[in-house]
Amino acid sequence: MKRASDGTRSRMSLSAFPALKNDCMLRAARGEATEWIPVWMMRQAGRYLPEYQEVRKDADFFTMCRTPELACKVSLQPLERFPTLDAVIIFSDILVIPQAMGMEVLMVKGKGPVFPDPLKVPEDIQKLTLKPDIESTLGYVFDAVNLTRERIAGRVPLIGFSGAPFTLMAYMIEGGGSRTLSKAKTWLFKHPEATHKLLQALTDIIVEYLVGKVKAGAQMLQVFESNGGDLTPDHFTEFSLPYLSQIASRVKAAVDVPMTVFARGANQEGALEALASTEYNTISVDWRIEPSDARKRAGNKTLQGNLDPGALYAAPETLRKLVAKMVKGFGTQRYIANLGHGMHPSHDPEMAGNFIDAVHACTN
Amino acid sequence: MKRASDGTRSRMSLSAFPALKNDCMLRAARGEATEWIPVWMMRQAGRYLPEYQEVRKDADFFTMCRTPELACKVSLQPLERFPTLDAVIIFSDILVIPQAMGMEVLMVKGKGPVFPDPLKVPEDIQKLTLKPDIESTLGYVFDAVNLTRERIAGRVPLIGFSGAPFTLMAYMIEGGGSRTLSKAKTWLFKHPEATHKLLQALTDIIVEYLVGKVKAGAQMLQVFESNGGDLTPDHFTEFSLPYLSQIASRVKAAVDVPMTVFARGANQEGALEALASTEYNTISVDWRIEPSDARKRAGNKTLQGNLDPGALYAAPETLRKLVAKMVKGFGTQRYIANLGHGMHPSHDPEMAGNFIDAVHACTN
Repeated sequence: MKRASDGTRSRMSLSAFPALKNDCMLRAARGEATEWIPVWMMRQAGRYLPEYQEVRKDADFFTMCRTPELACKVSLQPLERFPTLDAVIIFSDILVIPQAMGMEVLMVKGKGPVFPDPLKVPEDIQKLTLKPDIESTLGYVFDAVNLTRERIAGRVPLIGFSGAPFTLMAYMIEGGGSRTLSKAKTWLFKHPEATHKLLQALTDIIVEYLVGKVKAGAQMLQVFESNGGDLTPDHFTEFSLPYLSQIASRVKAAVDVPMTVFARGANQEGALEALASTEYNTISVDWRIEPSDARKRAGNKTLQGNLDPGALYAAPETLRKLVAKMVKGFGTQRYIANLGHGMHPSHDPEMAGNFIDAVHACTN
Repeated sequence: MKRASDGTRSRMSLSAFPALKNDCMLRAARGEATEWIPVWMMRQAGRYLPEYQEVRKDADFFTMCRTPELACKVSLQPLERFPTLDAVIIFSDILVIPQAMGMEVLMVKGKGPVFPDPLKVPEDIQKLTLKPDIESTLGYVFDAVNLTRERIAGRVPLIGFSGAPFTLMAYMIEGGGSRTLSKAKTWLFKHPEATHKLLQALTDIIVEYLVGKVKAGAQMLQVFESNGGDLTPDHFTEFSLPYLSQIASRVKAAVDVPMTVFARGANQEGALEALASTEYNTISVDWRIEPSDARKRAGNKTLQGNLDPGALYAAPETLRKLVAKMVKGFGTQRYIANLGHGMHPSHDPEMAGNFIDAVHACTN
């Protein structure tokens, strides 16, 4: 089905897009040889860029997500500014899925996302749309992906993403960000059956959503388990890993696409090893693990990461040394350079450029 | 020097206190045999207790810290409610040290601690009192410790504590809690010399402060590196570990006291192993590490922890199973049961009692 959410455009079919000129990141993800180290930054399209703020001042955050022209515009901003970037990631938010399930989510300045009516008790699951029509609720994301892929014009691959089930569930219960996750943990410890029911419903939606993104033009996918490191090892094994694994298997059974998993903070013994046994091509790791340790534990998976975003506050020559040390730890093959977490709003764009250059200066 | 901060009382000398009846925790810390597993909870004196809220409603948070009668009263509340607890920890706050250095710290409801005038640039270090008179600036804590030790009347040992240098520095620069620590990281990455200068000044104060606590009556000490897990492995090695290590060596050279270190989140390869090579008796670990893994990596140190505080939201029978599993992982010797982080304000006091009982139900 074609759908023109902004009334101006039908989606282009994949065969109509120009050939990809720079497929370095896709080759790295697939474990193939690369001539240089591909690099991009999580949250590369966002608040640290003045050109993003320029768009944002006239539009609500979720309006930007829902308006393909705007989402496309800010997705492309990093590539326009840094033409040597090896990927574009679609501008969107992980919380579009709870919205598709019928929950209200507001982006409150200085506070982040807020759910005015979060899930409180397991019975609240019944208020959710557990099987939303993905095209009618999230088609705007597919439109944004499709338009962005067209406008990239084959320069670099386009990454699509989703939040992972537990991370989304935590937001839906906490009603926003939380340091202790006390409400979400109550579900894990007290209502494990309801938790599994919700996680499975989220997984089903995420699978269809990610497949839809690929059909609309995404050439790589990343799943963000941002709260993965808040779980005990047992809870990670029970409530995160199986759903992460299921997502990779089911998406890959439907479409041929390289996939990355980022279970932030899940660095405990056994976690990386378990992720290495899933069907993800790439494991993204945060800044709290030594690259050589990650390499040792992640089998023959491609690794992505992991510079401390704080390193972008360093002097340029310090940043270069830190990047060189990181690359030495990971090696130059089966490797996608990135930060260990997203860009900060207070980062200087010039330092993002220095980071990209420092990676590309590291040769085989 | 004797000092009566509330005008009513001189400090009792250590020899005047009654003999300790329950020294189970101290023996566990020293690696000696124990007949049962000693247990206490981080933040056991605090917001989850209605009797604490009763005191708090009439007094500002830092006024409570500064008033020995009040600090003593809330320190004893957990023991009065749970007489089988194996320790009391003095009610205080890690931020009394920045206050002693001349910084203003407010406790803002719903937000936590706020520094109206945080450190911004390295030159701001000059505004600090780097060598405060500990007795005149922090004597009120010694008074509270002394009074509490007297009122415990030998039932259980009294724990004194301090924040660790990097954690205190992070607050002093961020001006409060922070998810990204972007300002503190700027110092680490851009101003390493100023950072070391500040960390060393904090270390000197902490050493004198902890020794003072022991002389006032504390029978065990814990150092909280609450932000330890936010650092890269290299930064942990450079900016946290050496100061943690120095504190233990210097305090132990001055007074004979068992010491615990809690570097929350510093579970990466090499971190526990490095802590095991310091002079701390006990390593406190968070909930994100398997007890058996911690045991394997911590040499012959005593371990403390590590139940997910969220487990106190579980059904009582689930809590008992989780505690039993934890104890099985740690073993019953060289072990002090605790949570992997502090009590939450939303915890039910009854579940704290269930936790204590569940630990004591685990026998050798």
